[in-house]
Amino acid sequence: MNIEIINTGSELLLGRVLNTHQQFLCRQLADAGYEVTRQVAIADTGEAIQEAVREAMTRSQLIIVTGGLGPTSDDITRDKIAELLDCELQEDPEVVEHVRSFFTRRNRPMPDRTRIQAMIPVGAEVIVNHHGTAPGLVIPAGESCLIMLPGPPRELRPMFSMQILPLIQDRFPFAGGFASVTLKSTGVGESLMEEMLEEPLSELRKEGLIVGFCARTGEVDIRLAATGEGSKELVARAERIAREIGTDHIYGSEDETLDQKIVELLTSQGKTLSLAESCTGGYIGHRITNISGASAVLMCGLVTYSDEAKQKLLGVSATTLEANGAVSEPVAREMAEGALRIGGTDFAISVTGIAGPTGGTEEKPVGTVYMGLATKTSTVVKHRINAFDRETFKFVTAQQILELLRQELIR
Amino acid sequence: MNIEIINTGSELLLGRVLNTHQQFLCRQLADAGYEVTRQVAIADTGEAIQEAVREAMTRSQLIIVTGGLGPTSDDITRDKIAELLDCELQEDPEVVEHVRSFFTRRNRPMPDRTRIQAMIPVGAEVIVNHHGTAPGLVIPAGESCLIMLPGPPRELRPMFSMQILPLIQDRFPFAGGFASVTLKSTGVGESLMEEMLEEPLSELRKEGLIVGFCARTGEVDIRLAATGEGSKELVARAERIAREIGTDHIYGSEDETLDQKIVELLTSQGKTLSLAESCTGGYIGHRITNISGASAVLMCGLVTYSDEAKQKLLGVSATTLEANGAVSEPVAREMAEGALRIGGTDFAISVTGIAGPTGGTEEKPVGTVYMGLATKTSTVVKHRINAFDRETFKFVTAQQILELLRQELIR
Repeated sequence: MNIEIINTGSELLLGRVLNTHQQFLCRQLADAGYEVTRQVAIADTGEAIQEAVREAMTRSQLIIVTGGLGPTSDDITRDKIAELLDCELQEDPEVVEHVRSFFTRRNRPMPDRTRIQAMIPVGAEVIVNHHGTAPGLVIPAGESCLIMLPGPPRELRPMFSMQILPLIQDRFPFAGGFASVTLKSTGVGESLMEEMLEEPLSELRKEGLIVGFCARTGEVDIRLAATGEGSKELVARAERIAREIGTDHIYGSEDETLDQKIVELLTSQGKTLSLAESCTGGYIGHRITNISGASAVLMCGLVTYSDEAKQKLLGVSATTLEANGAVSEPVAREMAEGALRIGGTDFAISVTGIAGPTGGTEEKPVGTVYMGLATKTSTVVKHRINAFDRETFKFVTAQQILELLRQELIR
Repeated sequence: MNIEIINTGSELLLGRVLNTHQQFLCRQLADAGYEVTRQVAIADTGEAIQEAVREAMTRSQLIIVTGGLGPTSDDITRDKIAELLDCELQEDPEVVEHVRSFFTRRNRPMPDRTRIQAMIPVGAEVIVNHHGTAPGLVIPAGESCLIMLPGPPRELRPMFSMQILPLIQDRFPFAGGFASVTLKSTGVGESLMEEMLEEPLSELRKEGLIVGFCARTGEVDIRLAATGEGSKELVARAERIAREIGTDHIYGSEDETLDQKIVELLTSQGKTLSLAESCTGGYIGHRITNISGASAVLMCGLVTYSDEAKQKLLGVSATTLEANGAVSEPVAREMAEGALRIGGTDFAISVTGIAGPTGGTEEKPVGTVYMGLATKTSTVVKHRINAFDRETFKFVTAQQILELLRQELIR
């Protein structure tokens, strides 16, 4: 089965916005066992839209078009596709009512031009938009099934997950089932992870297990999938093996993040955390506090960018700073111990390093970082060289120290 | 002129990664006056790559293919395109040397399979990769010019900006010139900004000025462009008008960020900053420290997530907390003043709010936030309701308080 996604919008081709629809839709479909064959982005001109749909109809059974269903003058997707498919447009009274009530609920007058969103191609199925005004549309296009989705992510995402995906699963069922799981790991490279799992999973591969790796800086995803009868059991067996072998590195599955794991582990153990950040500048605190529930476990974070702040806020001694420099093992140690003391917490982590692009020396090149983890009984400090651009440096460094904390929490 | 971008990589179609190449390349090209006509993402199979290139050759003068030039078994772009174009591959001794020296400099042995990256299609121009091993390639493809770029962003980006874009400008020059500028604004919605600029720019539009708006939560970009003779002057005139009218909201242009502006303004005025963050959890510190040079102006940040930390670290009084709650005008005020005192800085900003999704009340719904700005002479506190998801809440809140600081700095 071929699936094609067509993203319309001149802002995509001008590079003004990131195409997050692609990743969202591809991921949702892949997790349900459907692989997208091709994704296309085009400007919102009538010609480009019709050409892309016409081509897609020659090769894809399922075509998903995003954007251009709204009320403004550049929202022409619905019209142009209806024209291409030779369908008339008719006003749907239920959709008019939906649009009207959308404005009524917000105490705002309904602008006249929004009514155009109720013009539905004859033969199309209307998918109610619970988060906006433009409905989704499902329409036969030659031998293919064509789905139009509204462009705003907060409308598209829930509509796709809750309404469209079940409809796809209903119309394009798998003969013998499908199962997949994605395991998330950190602290080990892609090729090493591949090597570790190759032999142990080789038998299951012969039974039809599909193993895929996706590496990003600081993280490797392991995707285990299978189709057909017994796919669930096959994937479950593979997951058990992979988790056992990768136990030191696999921290979760699917959309779980390391930050989430940290907050979960601290919460379930009733433990608390303080942070002392220099070069990461608050980034670790930011990540932890992206997780709802962080307030119960994160006591405080001290962003001590200057030497003075390290002394004043964390009690790092002037002698230690002078003798070793701010980026050093002893300073990372005193920072972590200072944060533990000040926060009165069970754990404290510290980071001090040279994010670059300037500030490096021969002895301590850009990327040099010392990371401390203090508990009530001991402090460990790790030294790494993370020679990346500034933002990647922060990400990788945070991964490393959070993984060290996770290891401590699961011991 | 038609330009087509082909992104190869199964990880794109499985939704494992975001396609950041699309935005980067489209943006770079648009800023130089070239509009991408179509972007396609396909799996890294030989058939899909050849089909996409074959189609592109029928309609585009410039074809840019990303990914699949590396040493692993799924890196087949170079081979498959050479096959399609009926070109032989020959080992290029200079590229072999480049790959070898890449490993030598890192004190690592050169793996045998990396040598495959030196296999160059006969007739292709080699573009040296200054940040990795796989070279870029420029090759005639029928009537079109085809460019292959390595997949890793840290290799692709500098190669494109520094080496490929000048080459494109050389081969596809504009007859009568091109000019564009993108102004960045915050604190005002898209439609209001459009309204403000409509009348003042209407005369220039008649002369050929193209005005475009791109809104993201918390930011609106204004793009002014023109082609043909006199385009530079036309865009310059438009920019002057827009900056004058939008002066309260336009903080920069092109890729400038609000964070960058803050660091620049503080640096040039010799002023320093401290932060007191509750609900943003370190995010403001993270943004400021993403800017190289932040260490000279950011003294410290205090992430005081708990009431206890607010008292202990910032000196917020227990009475104030009890009487008003942590999310209140007086607490934001005491937090900012505490940070100013502790950091000994010229400015301090504070944030306290309810990021959600839980923790809201009728009186203080989710999204409620108080933001303080303390200077040596006074403190102002603003109240906002930013009812978004957690990460958007943080972003918008940071925009608002940083914009308040910017206004103070440019007064």
